Amino acid sequence: MEYPRHLKGKDLITTQEWDKKDLDIVLDVAREFKENRFNHPLSKSLLNKSFFMFFYNPSVRTRQSFEVAATELGGHALFLEPKSMRLKTEKTAGETVEDAANVMSQYAVGLGIRILEDAIPYYGAGDNLLREYAKYGNIPVVSMAHDKYHPCQGLADIMGLQNHLGKDLKGKKVLLTWAKGALVRSWSSVQEFLLIASRFGMEVTLAHPEGYDLDPEVIANVKKNAEENGVDFKITHDVKEGYEGVQVVYSRNWMSPNAYRDGKLQKEEEREKALKFKEWICDEEKWKLTDNALFIHPMPVDRGSEVTDEIASSKNSIIYEIAGNRLHVQKAVMALTMGDF
Amino acid sequence: MEYPRHLKGKDLITTQEWDKKDLDIVLDVAREFKENRFNHPLSKSLLNKSFFMFFYNPSVRTRQSFEVAATELGGHALFLEPKSMRLKTEKTAGETVEDAANVMSQYAVGLGIRILEDAIPYYGAGDNLLREYAKYGNIPVVSMAHDKYHPCQGLADIMGLQNHLGKDLKGKKVLLTWAKGALVRSWSSVQEFLLIASRFGMEVTLAHPEGYDLDPEVIANVKKNAEENGVDFKITHDVKEGYEGVQVVYSRNWMSPNAYRDGKLQKEEEREKALKFKEWICDEEKWKLTDNALFIHPMPVDRGSEVTDEIASSKNSIIYEIAGNRLHVQKAVMALTMGDF
Amino acid sequence: MEYPRHLKGKDLITTQEWDKKDLDIVLDVAREFKENRFNHPLSKSLLNKSFFMFFYNPSVRTRQSFEVAATELGGHALFLEPKSMRLKTEKTAGETVEDAANVMSQYAVGLGIRILEDAIPYYGAGDNLLREYAKYGNIPVVSMAHDKYHPCQGLADIMGLQNHLGKDLKGKKVLLTWAKGALVRSWSSVQEFLLIASRFGMEVTLAHPEGYDLDPEVIANVKKNAEENGVDFKITHDVKEGYEGVQVVYSRNWMSPNAYRDGKLQKEEEREKALKFKEWICDEEKWKLTDNALFIHPMPVDRGSEVTDEIASSKNSIIYEIAGNRLHVQKAVMALTMGDF
Repeated sequence: MEYPRHLKGKDLITTQEWDKKDLDIVLDVAREFKENRFNHPLSKSLLNKSFFMFFYNPSVRTRQSFEVAATELGGHALFLEPKSMRLKTEKTAGETVEDAANVMSQYAVGLGIRILEDAIPYYGAGDNLLREYAKYGNIPVVSMAHDKYHPCQGLADIMGLQNHLGKDLKGKKVLLTWAKGALVRSWSSVQEFLLIASRFGMEVTLAHPEGYDLDPEVIANVKKNAEENGVDFKITHDVKEGYEGVQVVYSRNWMSPNAYRDGKLQKEEEREKALKFKEWICDEEKWKLTDNALFIHPMPVDRGSEVTDEIASSKNSIIYEIAGNRLHVQKAVMALTMGDF
Repeated sequence: MEYPRHLKGKDLITTQEWDKKDLDIVLDVAREFKENRFNHPLSKSLLNKSFFMFFYNPSVRTRQSFEVAATELGGHALFLEPKSMRLKTEKTAGETVEDAANVMSQYAVGLGIRILEDAIPYYGAGDNLLREYAKYGNIPVVSMAHDKYHPCQGLADIMGLQNHLGKDLKGKKVLLTWAKGALVRSWSSVQEFLLIASRFGMEVTLAHPEGYDLDPEVIANVKKNAEENGVDFKITHDVKEGYEGVQVVYSRNWMSPNAYRDGKLQKEEEREKALKFKEWICDEEKWKLTDNALFIHPMPVDRGSEVTDEIASSKNSIIYEIAGNRLHVQKAVMALTMGDF
Repeated sequence: MEYPRHLKGKDLITTQEWDKKDLDIVLDVAREFKENRFNHPLSKSLLNKSFFMFFYNPSVRTRQSFEVAATELGGHALFLEPKSMRLKTEKTAGETVEDAANVMSQYAVGLGIRILEDAIPYYGAGDNLLREYAKYGNIPVVSMAHDKYHPCQGLADIMGLQNHLGKDLKGKKVLLTWAKGALVRSWSSVQEFLLIASRFGMEVTLAHPEGYDLDPEVIANVKKNAEENGVDFKITHDVKEGYEGVQVVYSRNWMSPNAYRDGKLQKEEEREKALKFKEWICDEEKWKLTDNALFIHPMPVDRGSEVTDEIASSKNSIIYEIAGNRLHVQKAVMALTMGDF
């Protein structure tokens, strides 16, 4: 079989910036990898090649799926913590991103970056950094979750939904609802989901208490996506009504737009604020309103806050399957953008 | 040659929970790997597959032997420090072991866990955690040393003794003696050795000052093993008498049963206590009582405290050979429990 | 093609201790790797074998090039931070280097060590440690930059210069000049360059302010090298005159001979001292004196202090090419000293 070569060298900062037909290609290849994990025609596409993973935040989970992805393509992923890199800032001597990116391009076939939460001084700073690396280096940059987007999570979510609801998701109803919790979570996964779900024609309802608005630029794009697909996109501040008749529920905590102040994340303040919304949990009572929905979540799940134990462990919950999809979609992205085949 | 497949998927928490004949299989395969390190029929059994290593404590040594083992089987070992994983505890929000184990099972073919000393609040907590991962995940869990056991060290010890004393160790005499030192060492290696040595029919003498008893449950199992093999198991508090006529001496410091208090390891207190027993060192004078014994130790050796330099570096010392065996037995365990062949 | 086997097992602490003809072999093989990065006859020389990297200092850059080198030879490099190894010191219990090196030799085919700056109590301590590992272990030790030398950087520099000035560097003029800056850099790269450049017959001028002398033992060797090649070696304290008519400029900050006191690096003091020499930057005015020189630097470059942005990014700057050479020369060194072929 022939695999398309036009994605070679392409950055993946958000799925919103890729053509829909290219996302379809990634999902098709990911499904092949799921069926044929170790003997796929692209299984050697990274043979003896190196993928650099820059973790500005510590992470165990995301590292697992990316490092395993490189391994299963015959390559190697380096776990790098750039806090030990002396990068030039306004105040300190060090290396420019231009230099760092140019040198890396001598060694690696791709660069993954994760930058979230307390590694950034304000929302958007992580996204800027990814785009700077993408600009100066000549190897593809892929987001491994950053403050704005999480493209591989979005692809894994869609792959899971397509598996259960059929490849054509047009008109399928999904609720993305804010949930209480002490973890002060970033906007990356939920924003990516809103974008890709509306892109694939799903009818999305976004529910959150007042004061938990997401990035207006993202919301504008979601509206545009929905319009282009001729479907609705609703926002509600009611804790319950969004559950009505949906086929999918995605319940997740996220920080407020005021989370960053004075150049840092106000974690304690956000935690206190979020814990006040005691009703904002995905529970049995609300669940009854759904159309026997699937429960999805990018994990780790905060059981007892974001969702009850019963729903998270029910047969309707496809959270482990979606976590598994992370591996398959990332292999597809890496093979197609960085691989030799 | 055909290799047995019934070990696939099996956890290894302690050798005591494996059939003796399965330990024999592991040792046979380990000997083959020692002879034929890179071109063994099982050398590709982990090809492009990932083994997760969870280090709750930092470690350089154990990591070396496990990461090299995975590499030599064609696979890759990920060095993961779960302190950066937000696990749910009684007091903090985070992920359950159920969720973490289920996700890992999507990516890895096996999970190694090391948890010792100051990473646990009380003796037994590490063992509980391993068993929780083993319960929820569907990939084999192997101990890379935890508070109670250290199965791969025990197998490496036996492999070394068999090499020098013959494959049948029945009736061979071994002294396992406590030694002074400032390192406040865990019970894992010595308890595993008592279990596996008695399992293989060795006549074991355990020597330690009063106040340094090991886990009563382990001691009961050692007695049972000895009885089943019709050999003696003796405990003495005399620093010298255990040396009389033995073919093997294993001298090693360990903490007292009072080492944990108020949810943590009382390191300073243990250090002071242990340093008072000035005579408890394996030295020339005591050595003369042995039957030209082999000196063994799981390393790192605390020279000058646990043993004299002369004995540790003598031709009777097989400590480096046993350290090398760690690699071979771990390759055998990983190939047989996690491999594809 | 046949590759020479006499380098197998050889340590690389500094190029000065290798025969010139063996350095030529390394450079030839490195050029082959540059041409043929993934399908070279030696591309499997480390297949399934493990290279240990000991980083006493955190590093992102050096790790990249060594870890990628092992990967491209079919092997695996372990990133190890020995600060978590309990080594015996005068004051603390722990393992001897003899024991650590002997055990490592059971697992790995080679050992790289990086030890610089604040990881050492005095200049020379790092070099001593490398030589101790080399003495006790039976696998080759390669410096990944230590307080005295940086052989792979030196080889990468020469490879870059040969590419632009021709393979015979005899009589080519190079200026190595000290530069201001806040980074308090070690002597390793510049000392290695002085040695290897004079070894290859280049006419070297060393320029620095008074008070920034390098290691007298190294300077004596540079003189000897120059004499043997019948070329000049000059030292000047004038900021400008060394630029006159040279084909290569290497501008780099380094610490003074008084940087270590009371068992540690006096970083603040050095920083203040270095920043006073405002004229010591490679800039356009001085550049005009050169013979349209190449600009080289081991990176990371401190732009605005060591060199102007314009020169560092000019077409005469070959800093990225040399950074790329690091990979190729390290592959050559590892294949020839540690590989199976």
